[in-house]
Amino acid sequence: MSSGKRIDETSAWQSILSHPAENLRGALTPARIAARTIPAGGGLDYSYAAMDVDDGTIALLADVSRTLDLVGQYGALVAGAIMNPGEKRMVLHHATRGQPGGPAVKEGRDYRAFYEDERLRAASFADKVRSGDIAGSTGRRFERVVQIGIGGSDLGPRALYLALEQWARERGKLALKAAFISNVDPDDANGVLSGLDPETSLFILVSKSGTTQETLANESLVKAWLSKKPGIDPARHLVAVTSETSPLARNPAYLDSFYIDDYIGGRYSATSAVGGVILSVALGPDTFEAILVGAAEADELAMQPDLSRNASMMDAMLGVYERCVLGRPSVAVLPYTQALSRFPAHLQQLDMESNGKQVDREGKSVVIPSGPTVFGEPGTNGQHSFYQHLHQGTDIVPLQFIGFRKNQTGFDPEFEGSTARKKLNANLAAQIVAFALGKDDADPNRRFPGGRPSSLLVGDELDPRALGALLAHYENKVMFQGFAWNLNSFDQEGVQLGKKLTGTVLAKGGPSDPALSAYARLLGAL
Amino acid sequence: MSSGKRIDETSAWQSILSHPAENLRGALTPARIAARTIPAGGGLDYSYAAMDVDDGTIALLADVSRTLDLVGQYGALVAGAIMNPGEKRMVLHHATRGQPGGPAVKEGRDYRAFYEDERLRAASFADKVRSGDIAGSTGRRFERVVQIGIGGSDLGPRALYLALEQWARERGKLALKAAFISNVDPDDANGVLSGLDPETSLFILVSKSGTTQETLANESLVKAWLSKKPGIDPARHLVAVTSETSPLARNPAYLDSFYIDDYIGGRYSATSAVGGVILSVALGPDTFEAILVGAAEADELAMQPDLSRNASMMDAMLGVYERCVLGRPSVAVLPYTQALSRFPAHLQQLDMESNGKQVDREGKSVVIPSGPTVFGEPGTNGQHSFYQHLHQGTDIVPLQFIGFRKNQTGFDPEFEGSTARKKLNANLAAQIVAFALGKDDADPNRRFPGGRPSSLLVGDELDPRALGALLAHYENKVMFQGFAWNLNSFDQEGVQLGKKLTGTVLAKGGPSDPALSAYARLLGAL
Repeated sequence: MSSGKRIDETSAWQSILSHPAENLRGALTPARIAARTIPAGGGLDYSYAAMDVDDGTIALLADVSRTLDLVGQYGALVAGAIMNPGEKRMVLHHATRGQPGGPAVKEGRDYRAFYEDERLRAASFADKVRSGDIAGSTGRRFERVVQIGIGGSDLGPRALYLALEQWARERGKLALKAAFISNVDPDDANGVLSGLDPETSLFILVSKSGTTQETLANESLVKAWLSKKPGIDPARHLVAVTSETSPLARNPAYLDSFYIDDYIGGRYSATSAVGGVILSVALGPDTFEAILVGAAEADELAMQPDLSRNASMMDAMLGVYERCVLGRPSVAVLPYTQALSRFPAHLQQLDMESNGKQVDREGKSVVIPSGPTVFGEPGTNGQHSFYQHLHQGTDIVPLQFIGFRKNQTGFDPEFEGSTARKKLNANLAAQIVAFALGKDDADPNRRFPGGRPSSLLVGDELDPRALGALLAHYENKVMFQGFAWNLNSFDQEGVQLGKKLTGTVLAKGGPSDPALSAYARLLGAL
Repeated sequence: MSSGKRIDETSAWQSILSHPAENLRGALTPARIAARTIPAGGGLDYSYAAMDVDDGTIALLADVSRTLDLVGQYGALVAGAIMNPGEKRMVLHHATRGQPGGPAVKEGRDYRAFYEDERLRAASFADKVRSGDIAGSTGRRFERVVQIGIGGSDLGPRALYLALEQWARERGKLALKAAFISNVDPDDANGVLSGLDPETSLFILVSKSGTTQETLANESLVKAWLSKKPGIDPARHLVAVTSETSPLARNPAYLDSFYIDDYIGGRYSATSAVGGVILSVALGPDTFEAILVGAAEADELAMQPDLSRNASMMDAMLGVYERCVLGRPSVAVLPYTQALSRFPAHLQQLDMESNGKQVDREGKSVVIPSGPTVFGEPGTNGQHSFYQHLHQGTDIVPLQFIGFRKNQTGFDPEFEGSTARKKLNANLAAQIVAFALGKDDADPNRRFPGGRPSSLLVGDELDPRALGALLAHYENKVMFQGFAWNLNSFDQEGVQLGKKLTGTVLAKGGPSDPALSAYARLLGAL
């Protein structure tokens, strides 16, 4: 499963440690920008010209990627190896959108066909909701669709929906506006419900196990809210997305159920029924299908063994270098499009839950830092917020810019000689260069040290295909980093202790730990 | 202005460096939780029992705070000293809500009276909008209010509005729903406008200088959108919040104008007219006034020279210790209330733009790390996202929890023996203890190292007064940290270079820098 080699024990890694870091001033030429801009799938390009690594370091990183057989590990993953050893599970989210490396039938079951059948069932359901053939229990057409889920059942689908809401509206595809209920805080559900009419609201309950505390509590609240209105049958307003073995499966409490399985991890589930049902209902089945097309393109590219032709693996290796060689603990994701406002929150889960680990796949403590802290907000908003720290703070934060050449919406009148789109992208170009090159000044407070590395994912327009590629690019980046660090990127044992202690607070008699009792009392929970 | 002493040169700091860090296992007793829970204003308490510092370290931090005269510097600030030396300005945001340390008239002008007069003018305007006495140009009552602003003109007001939207709705105070347009990306404005009717929409344009590129571009787009509908006079749908010397002041293009001045920094402006107009219109003038009452309480508490009675200064000093002694580069803000969903984004600006600096107030390079990276999401959502990294990652991230004993909204049916509120707070208590104490396990993948420090701001209910105190607590924390690091927390020279380079891309002829030209072309901006 793993290559059996540890990254810090490879000779190429040892060479990297003694190889000098690059000074970006002087290095950032148009020729380099052209040479270091490579396809990332879905019409996107990945540009890493402004990363502070020279060609020598990149050659050594390529050597590391070959020695650790990163692409071979990816091949094993898609072919059905047990790449989640802690839970003894395969990792099959790629099969929700294609078959990179060719078809693979595992354990006598064609998983690709299973996921595709569920997608087609969701598409058919979505068409009927969108046409009004499936309506609420009082006969009125559904106008709003609400996902009830948390973590991967919330962040990915929400980020994708918001990314395409305006795109779909402009193209007449936004049949139902979507909303999301995630937090066990009842103010979350009550806030969302305050804008809804039970008669015209459809809810999608998403929990693989069917036992997620927050999601079941919110379902209970939503059912009570639906039942307040005479004539409403909650079972005709709720569908489930779950595993076939969960208590929610084939349950008459739901209008319909759609299935995933144990081989789709929550944070990797946006392209399964977890994202598929709500995105197909809200934005149209064809929109969701186009997301999958883009994701499959990025997945195919990730099969490329040559590092300089494999955008997600390049992004992964440069990130490992920043984190472990240059010692940079955080990464900022900075999309220059408001539509991606919640995409950084999705990446926060994807990256930090996958690779925020201190034990490797052999159960040994890691000896070099693992996954970084990930945060981010859209530009240009961030420029007026935390960029001060990024330009002149004492730490260097590697930056991941995302940009598009065109708007999603049509209205963009010129002001002071340029459109807003042109201003937006002029800002993005300016920031890349300002971070990389800095500026001297006699006033030390106005001095910009520069040497602050960034990469750029750039496309023509944030459409479904580009969005799918963007999503898969990051999934594959995180996967390759996990392989490089020899981590299991597909479990999350770190979330268990808190759940267990919560149970003791809620159990009869309360917790035995005196500190836990004291905090629970301070918070009014005992 | 500064104490003239550098923190790393104080003898107490030297003692801290050789003082052992504390092991939380065994230390986290109910007695310690009681002793280390102190008032923070507005009915809030600040609990720092789960920080990994012993009483000896706290005594030394108190010694540092006295040696650097942090409270004395705060006193000088509110009395009108030039605490923003780079821009040669006073720093007077406290005067928008009170007079900590007693009245101070500066330069012959009573600033407190000026800010209070503007608040009262905004309250009167808001009452007329809410009653319908001021209506749109076709005579229809305003139903929606939209702030156009970026950075401090967006993040703080937006965070406060979202914090109280459900609270106000439940109490019949939400007369107009608010929205925000910030990004120069036209998809942001078009997305917000797609849900609005020009006849019933009121816009608040916020720019202190009246020259902010994004805000003027968005104003131009909004005016064009308003003008598309026959019978709409944009001047009757727009008000300005600006300085008295800006081009927007006393301008017939606006229905009315409200004023701030150069002594209110953007990220500290939420309690000025920048937040006051929209919050008064949307939530009611009494709601905004109650926010100020809570903020003033926290400001008064911050005058307390005894560290163990000064919550914001304690929070500040513990943060300096984590950052500079224990070497922790990031801080996570984790509110256990969905209403504070955007409060971490506000704190990100507040902290990272204030203290993300590498030059001190004397123009010398800092020798120890300055402000950290700040990020966060509401709990329990974060538990299903990045908490894996917080529990088992290779870096330790100090945590800032926020919790409340009661809901804002009334509907909270029991499910499986407890309300959602109880579940929420049981989770919060459990997380604090899980992070602090960890858990051993024979399986290294299920081992929790513990020793992960957290603090807790806790109150009865997130009402306007508690929210005001919460806001001011963090403002004062960041201010005290700036004093401790001898930084100017009130300028932001780091944002200038990007603006300047953007201008060269948009100027006739384009930029002279070849790398900038190449990036601008790649992004379609040339």
